[in-house]
Amino acid sequence: IHMATTKTGQPLDRGTLDILLRRRLFYTPSFEIYGGVSGLYDYGPPGCALQANIVDTWRKHFVLEEDMMEVDCTMLTPHEVLKTSGHVDKFADWMCKDSKTGEIFRADHLVEEVLEARLKGDKQARGIKEEEDKEDEDDKKKKKKKVKEIKAIKLDDAVRLEYEETLAKIDNYDGKELGELIVKHNITNPATGGALEPPVSFNLMFSTSIGPSANLPGYLRPETAQGQFLTFSKLLEFNNAKMPFASASIGKSFRNEISPKSGLLRVREFLMAEIEHFVDPQKKSHPRFAEVKDIELRLLDKDVQLSGKTILTTKKIGDAVKEGIVDNETLGYFLARIFLFLTELGVDPEKLRFRQHMANEMAHYATDCWDAELLTSYGWVECVGCADRSAYDLTVHTKKTGQPLIVRENLENPVVWEEWDVDVDKKWMGPRFRKDAKKVEETIEAISQADREILAAKQAAGEKVMITVEGLGEVELEKVEIVKRQKQQYIREYTPNVIEPSFGIGRIFYSLIEHIYYTRPEDATRGVLAFPPKIAPTKVLIVPLSGNAEFVPWIEKITRTMRKAGIANRVDDSSASIGKRYARNDELGTPFGVTVDFQTVKDGTITLRERDGMKQIRASIEDIVAVVKAQVEGNGEPWEKIVEKFGEFTGQDLE
Amino acid sequence: IHMATTKTGQPLDRGTLDILLRRRLFYTPSFEIYGGVSGLYDYGPPGCALQANIVDTWRKHFVLEEDMMEVDCTMLTPHEVLKTSGHVDKFADWMCKDSKTGEIFRADHLVEEVLEARLKGDKQARGIKEEEDKEDEDDKKKKKKKVKEIKAIKLDDAVRLEYEETLAKIDNYDGKELGELIVKHNITNPATGGALEPPVSFNLMFSTSIGPSANLPGYLRPETAQGQFLTFSKLLEFNNAKMPFASASIGKSFRNEISPKSGLLRVREFLMAEIEHFVDPQKKSHPRFAEVKDIELRLLDKDVQLSGKTILTTKKIGDAVKEGIVDNETLGYFLARIFLFLTELGVDPEKLRFRQHMANEMAHYATDCWDAELLTSYGWVECVGCADRSAYDLTVHTKKTGQPLIVRENLENPVVWEEWDVDVDKKWMGPRFRKDAKKVEETIEAISQADREILAAKQAAGEKVMITVEGLGEVELEKVEIVKRQKQQYIREYTPNVIEPSFGIGRIFYSLIEHIYYTRPEDATRGVLAFPPKIAPTKVLIVPLSGNAEFVPWIEKITRTMRKAGIANRVDDSSASIGKRYARNDELGTPFGVTVDFQTVKDGTITLRERDGMKQIRASIEDIVAVVKAQVEGNGEPWEKIVEKFGEFTGQDLE
Repeated sequence: IHMATTKTGQPLDRGTLDILLRRRLFYTPSFEIYGGVSGLYDYGPPGCALQANIVDTWRKHFVLEEDMMEVDCTMLTPHEVLKTSGHVDKFADWMCKDSKTGEIFRADHLVEEVLEARLKGDKQARGIKEEEDKEDEDDKKKKKKKVKEIKAIKLDDAVRLEYEETLAKIDNYDGKELGELIVKHNITNPATGGALEPPVSFNLMFSTSIGPSANLPGYLRPETAQGQFLTFSKLLEFNNAKMPFASASIGKSFRNEISPKSGLLRVREFLMAEIEHFVDPQKKSHPRFAEVKDIELRLLDKDVQLSGKTILTTKKIGDAVKEGIVDNETLGYFLARIFLFLTELGVDPEKLRFRQHMANEMAHYATDCWDAELLTSYGWVECVGCADRSAYDLTVHTKKTGQPLIVRENLENPVVWEEWDVDVDKKWMGPRFRKDAKKVEETIEAISQADREILAAKQAAGEKVMITVEGLGEVELEKVEIVKRQKQQYIREYTPNVIEPSFGIGRIFYSLIEHIYYTRPEDATRGVLAFPPKIAPTKVLIVPLSGNAEFVPWIEKITRTMRKAGIANRVDDSSASIGKRYARNDELGTPFGVTVDFQTVKDGTITLRERDGMKQIRASIEDIVAVVKAQVEGNGEPWEKIVEKFGEFTGQDLE
Repeated sequence: IHMATTKTGQPLDRGTLDILLRRRLFYTPSFEIYGGVSGLYDYGPPGCALQANIVDTWRKHFVLEEDMMEVDCTMLTPHEVLKTSGHVDKFADWMCKDSKTGEIFRADHLVEEVLEARLKGDKQARGIKEEEDKEDEDDKKKKKKKVKEIKAIKLDDAVRLEYEETLAKIDNYDGKELGELIVKHNITNPATGGALEPPVSFNLMFSTSIGPSANLPGYLRPETAQGQFLTFSKLLEFNNAKMPFASASIGKSFRNEISPKSGLLRVREFLMAEIEHFVDPQKKSHPRFAEVKDIELRLLDKDVQLSGKTILTTKKIGDAVKEGIVDNETLGYFLARIFLFLTELGVDPEKLRFRQHMANEMAHYATDCWDAELLTSYGWVECVGCADRSAYDLTVHTKKTGQPLIVRENLENPVVWEEWDVDVDKKWMGPRFRKDAKKVEETIEAISQADREILAAKQAAGEKVMITVEGLGEVELEKVEIVKRQKQQYIREYTPNVIEPSFGIGRIFYSLIEHIYYTRPEDATRGVLAFPPKIAPTKVLIVPLSGNAEFVPWIEKITRTMRKAGIANRVDDSSASIGKRYARNDELGTPFGVTVDFQTVKDGTITLRERDGMKQIRASIEDIVAVVKAQVEGNGEPWEKIVEKFGEFTGQDLE
């Protein structure tokens, strides 16, 4: 339990921010004029541009930087593939139904909400006050919650402790355990008090039918990963059979959430960016690990959570790998790269932690998993998962299809070893055993190396070589030689392991906005989205001082010059005051404003205003465009330096 | 019926091209190791990059150039929305079933194939030879066709003519008419000769269920358009209530095709880029039409097709609009812009035509529609549709939801007109008619202006004012004044019309490849994809002469410099000969090759080789990168000029 804050450390009022985001069309409920569908949102122009900039940064940071192979696979997926991958059986949440009203609850969320409400009621009963701002904020959240009312009832100390420990590991319970918690703590439908049926599994995939004859059932993919796995052999060949390599994919995935809530954080259709890094299970070191080893991450490992605590440890990733907290270098490398990506976007590193999954919480395919979580007004939000899926997926698909998804490695130095061979004279064996010959041969094949050595020793000592064959009893191998030979192998076959960093773009999108949002100290109603210039939907707002016709050719010249330089810009020639127009663009997070005034007409200079400090410079169009271009590409000087260089311009009264 | 050709005018062997595209992972059947699902394809790394470059060009050419508002709406769409839009009832193809075998055929395709096969059989029977290459090619196509065998049977001249005319308007038949054709021409299951059931409508949307309780049926969107329409009012507000404006969206759509074929051309999941240009129905002129009016397009209008012909007319778009062949300037503007976009990608303008839809062929929402079609080995392929959807969609959604999707325009000069008012004294009317008063009032309201004028004249002449009220008969209006008054209106309300250019990215992708593919004259087995540098998946292949360690730091320097300049590059340090490595990259369509050799180590120069002419220059890394950057950004000099400037380099023997 925490208090959400803005970029400048003030209490964050989520209601106000939400209104801003919808008014400025960052996102908007889908099908709103039809009453909307919960868990579905559309992105308007600034949201769409922000999303594109996040994806573009991701592509440069991961795909281009590490030469990954991007693929685009279909969302429609036949039943058989997802049956094999385990999703048909295991990709599910637990839901319980109030049999009287028909209402459906997601079991873990219900237990969590009810216990949290009781703990709060206990605090009230014991007269413990929480900060006012927090209370306000909770009131707003309550509207979306199932539990509408907090009852001030004191709890026993033991009960309180039990609740707190249960909540710390709420993600670790299966359906049976959740059912037991519901019975034990007498959890009912919060609205009616009605009894709940025991939790049943609800598969989260959207199902459909492919083709006209309804005989090919399918689903919308729940992740982009399966398409990448199925293409593994082709990608390996495309990569000239070299290992390791990574594929990557950016695209929509779907989850039929039981009861979507929390805005963009829990939706039914979402953009994912996923990497599948295929690696030799014997070589999980990473050639570029040294570049990141000193990066400090805030970690919350599984043991701490299982002990019922949530204390973070700050550690260099190099040390975390050395100490075995993070399993291997490749996993550690990606955790650090994820940290660098998120902070490049503008995420506050103080509101970023890496949390390890507990055993029962982990997806069915994972052997280890760390989530990058961002702190928001909804609490810690899982934004990136980084799982070691081991050889799980490639193995099950190979087994099902008979198509080997494996690597054949030519060994530079062949593996050499010695082995006992049992050579029986076939010409003797055939006539001797007739139809049982095959059975005898199989029995011989199955003799272990240790037993072969014993037989060889006996033979050398002059004894008969006797073996026991099922159905024949003990038989003598008369014409046999048992010899030790040197063997060599030139090819090694293995199924790669997969390290999978998986990014929920919509969750990053929303959490980032909470991290960079603030209000002007001089006007608390004036919200600002302080996107870094690289990420901002629009880079420059161009405002003519008035509707004077003399400004028009200048506006056109500036627009053209900026477009050519690849700078997304927008003209606001509405009749609103310049101050109002800048306020509107604060809300859109536009980092720069250009004004065209009468001096422009005289000497061709324009003013450039920076969003956060609101200081202006004045220079030629060419100089201003060069300054902005450097800022947008992320290689410009700090703004103070620029103001120093050009001199602050204060001549024009804008506000 | 035509012969497909390569970029250099040779016969195009589709089988060979297909193998190339799959080998180089441009695309590959989805779920292939599970046997595949027809109509689903994945894009591998070069396909993914090519697709991204096409989309990027589209975004610059349309969205940025014309300041369109890009949105990203969900694919999941509730039933009610698509019921209103007409898709639930009308978005369907006609299918007929062989009741014996259960086989399902798409009715129009079956009629088309059978009649074409009979015409071919007729030609054979009459001893008319077709070109050999064509025959070869048809043999290949046959594998995917339902009609496997051509029977040499001579047809009556009248029958032949009827078949030909039927085929020219095959897209214009509805289910009943197709059923009649099947009966009339005795069309049966080509494999078994079995009878077919009459065509029934098959809806092409994939259906699913949203939420856990299965009470919200939904579909995967068949187009991105509906999301844009539903957001209309928000977008209008975001645009400061200014008209006209356009929204745009890039995303996947879905069609559950009855029997997908023709590779990427008829698939079940596909990327679309759609523009919805909202315009005042009274102002369909376009401010930038003058910029494009002299562009010549090859047109095939509906009248020509209905006459059973397919003759193209080449016309300036300005003249086509003037003559009313193309309905209005905005529609014409977009046709010209589509032409510019496609040719910018590398489409051959000689293999591009604009075909107008015939009445029955048109989608249920369209009032006029032109397709940009590209000529390929599959015939003319619809790649872009440009429809005037009029006010259809906004009107039906307004009607269904009660939320007005309209524009309110403040009129600078109010509309002024005169009108006769019938003012009845309410105090007299209430007591006089009691419960019938409302009915009388409604009757008065309904009197036309012309009749009011007559009544006024009668009253002026001293006559009584008599009206006939249903159920009351003729009654006198005793206390009434009929006066002419001046009226003014300051606000105009209207539902915008929508012009919709809609791009099938996958179809453009494939058709473009056929247009730019050729084989080297010196080696017919060596395929080249001659992508323009801007569109090519990878821009530069970097090859070290050998595995010599001295080359490594140079390779790294070149890679780093190019990445910084935003040039997608790939190193091939495999042990294959340089010639082989270049051949591999011909197939990937990489326009430039850089070689690092021993001279590089000495003086820092590298060679740059252009794909199509295979001529090389030699210069410093900085100069080479500058040359490539200009080419990739589309503002470089012609390659011959560059060779002239730097001098052709022939010192190194590569092949």
